[in-house]
Amino acid sequence: MTTHHLAIEKKRIVHLAEGKFNLRTSKMTTGVIRYGYHDSVAVIDSTKIGKTAEDVLGFGGDVPVVGSLAEAMKFEPEALLIGITPPGGRLPEDMRTVIIEAIALGLDVYAGLHDFLNEDEEIASAAKDQGVMLWDLRKPPRSMPVGGGLTRWSKSYISLMVGSDAAIGKMTVALEIHNKARERGINSEFVATGQCGIAIAGWGSPIDAIPGDFMAGVVERDVLSCDGADMILVEGQGSLYHPGFSSVTLGLIHGACPHSLILCHQSSRTEISNIRDRPIPPLNEVADHYLAFVHSFRPECRVVGVSLNTSGTSNEEARAAVEEAEALLGVPATDPIRFGPDKLVDALENHRRELGM
Amino acid sequence: MTTHHLAIEKKRIVHLAEGKFNLRTSKMTTGVIRYGYHDSVAVIDSTKIGKTAEDVLGFGGDVPVVGSLAEAMKFEPEALLIGITPPGGRLPEDMRTVIIEAIALGLDVYAGLHDFLNEDEEIASAAKDQGVMLWDLRKPPRSMPVGGGLTRWSKSYISLMVGSDAAIGKMTVALEIHNKARERGINSEFVATGQCGIAIAGWGSPIDAIPGDFMAGVVERDVLSCDGADMILVEGQGSLYHPGFSSVTLGLIHGACPHSLILCHQSSRTEISNIRDRPIPPLNEVADHYLAFVHSFRPECRVVGVSLNTSGTSNEEARAAVEEAEALLGVPATDPIRFGPDKLVDALENHRRELGM
Repeated sequence: MTTHHLAIEKKRIVHLAEGKFNLRTSKMTTGVIRYGYHDSVAVIDSTKIGKTAEDVLGFGGDVPVVGSLAEAMKFEPEALLIGITPPGGRLPEDMRTVIIEAIALGLDVYAGLHDFLNEDEEIASAAKDQGVMLWDLRKPPRSMPVGGGLTRWSKSYISLMVGSDAAIGKMTVALEIHNKARERGINSEFVATGQCGIAIAGWGSPIDAIPGDFMAGVVERDVLSCDGADMILVEGQGSLYHPGFSSVTLGLIHGACPHSLILCHQSSRTEISNIRDRPIPPLNEVADHYLAFVHSFRPECRVVGVSLNTSGTSNEEARAAVEEAEALLGVPATDPIRFGPDKLVDALENHRRELGM
Repeated sequence: MTTHHLAIEKKRIVHLAEGKFNLRTSKMTTGVIRYGYHDSVAVIDSTKIGKTAEDVLGFGGDVPVVGSLAEAMKFEPEALLIGITPPGGRLPEDMRTVIIEAIALGLDVYAGLHDFLNEDEEIASAAKDQGVMLWDLRKPPRSMPVGGGLTRWSKSYISLMVGSDAAIGKMTVALEIHNKARERGINSEFVATGQCGIAIAGWGSPIDAIPGDFMAGVVERDVLSCDGADMILVEGQGSLYHPGFSSVTLGLIHGACPHSLILCHQSSRTEISNIRDRPIPPLNEVADHYLAFVHSFRPECRVVGVSLNTSGTSNEEARAAVEEAEALLGVPATDPIRFGPDKLVDALENHRRELGM
């Protein structure tokens, strides 16, 4: 399927999502259950004991929710995945306790925290004694180049997911498009750029944890490693409108030098989340703002589709939002979760053919 | 002078600039000799033995150049500063040898490499045994916030140096303006954002070494720590036109949310250095491109001056370049090294008064 060396082979995974197992707050767990190649055998969340993934998320089948790691052991997990991200990515005490317990039980531990397991004396030495593996999903790669805009000469078609805001569904959109493209026989590659995407794909670099000097260079290298694919879908991060994360977004734009953008938006969102006094402009303005930055390296780049996250609205409201976006930007729009990603795959394929790639 | 806690008090410094002591390739040494508060007692460069800083740089007085650390010891240094930056910031073998030697001689060691001295087993344990201090100028701070665009509410006037290219003199411009402003009794603060600026100022965060998620937040915090000053001058990094470093530049723009920009350019430069096929657009286009990204957070931001690096050209050519820039952008322009920074200080003061700050 992928030609990339996977960091982790397929494993039986128990997820730690204590008190937070739902669509909004356990992104890692949700993503791996939905899109990952591992066997999710159980989820730890004492507030939802007895439920299944299907009950809680609306997908995932009968993956059971249990109250503790001890209870999860009867499902014979091989690894513990930290499924939730504490603010700032720091390791809380109760989480440390579960990790130490997992190591003692012989489980590998995978986590996407800014505090690396491998650099934590207590955790690292426990893992060493037990001979289990610790995977820090957010640890920058050992060798990191400076970007040179080399993706301008990519022989493969590159599309980048960008968002009006952070946390808007960019990863989900990329994966939906990727899976549908592959279904259709298109040799599509997904370039993960965040720890959830990396846990799902099994490879990739966590761009938001990479030092500023090297963000674009690492993206460039990861995208070029897919050269030869029909289509390279790059997971976006942040938003040019979020003052804290805009630099990560630009690192992706100039690292990937995409041929096209898929603009992602949540139809009900009007302000940048968690930022004081930062309204989201009209979508056509957002599109132009993004293009201004890409055009300095790839003048032919276009927004070829809009992906709307219409969760929490009715089918009717969703369809109206789709029509509004299409009228405003003159490109196909859809909610890939509610209506399927076909329109977006079509749009990308049409553009790719237009460019003769 | 400054209200910030200095990382290092005034010391007698010997600089390691072996084979590279000149204006272009020993930026750290050059900067500290020119602008720093330390006593530079000697420079190690076996290719220039017997010369002085004045001979080599055109300033710095009779700081002697010697052939080795052993020879430098007669000047009673207290610390060794690594004055050159190897590509990628990695530690070469010959440099390691000198560092170990310095530690054995009881000197502190200061370096701005991506490989941290404090994380090098051999160097760190040697320093520990000797009781000397190792300062990693490029090590991210322990606590790092996510940016929220809070500098939008700064009570102090903020100006950011931006460049058509990287390595164009942005730090030098900021320091020339800062020193002149202080001479005039203006309570100016200089916010260093790179290891050379940090070595000079004694405080600051190395933005290009900070993980993407936190770049803007750290800049924001450092700028707000100067709140109360008449004028806050922020050292720029990179350029929006350099595909590898543009993300660092945007992190500074959205972290500082400046009231004004000083646009820095080298009159003889037409291409982005070391990047294939990346011409520098006309200066007015460069100005507009930068403003497009500041304006999304501070609509009243203006380019209030142009700083030209006219080194390598005649006085006549320099004056012509100045006039051309002024005609093109309609704002004061000068070369602060050749002609003095007064025009730029005037421009900033006028703008500050205009904003009632």
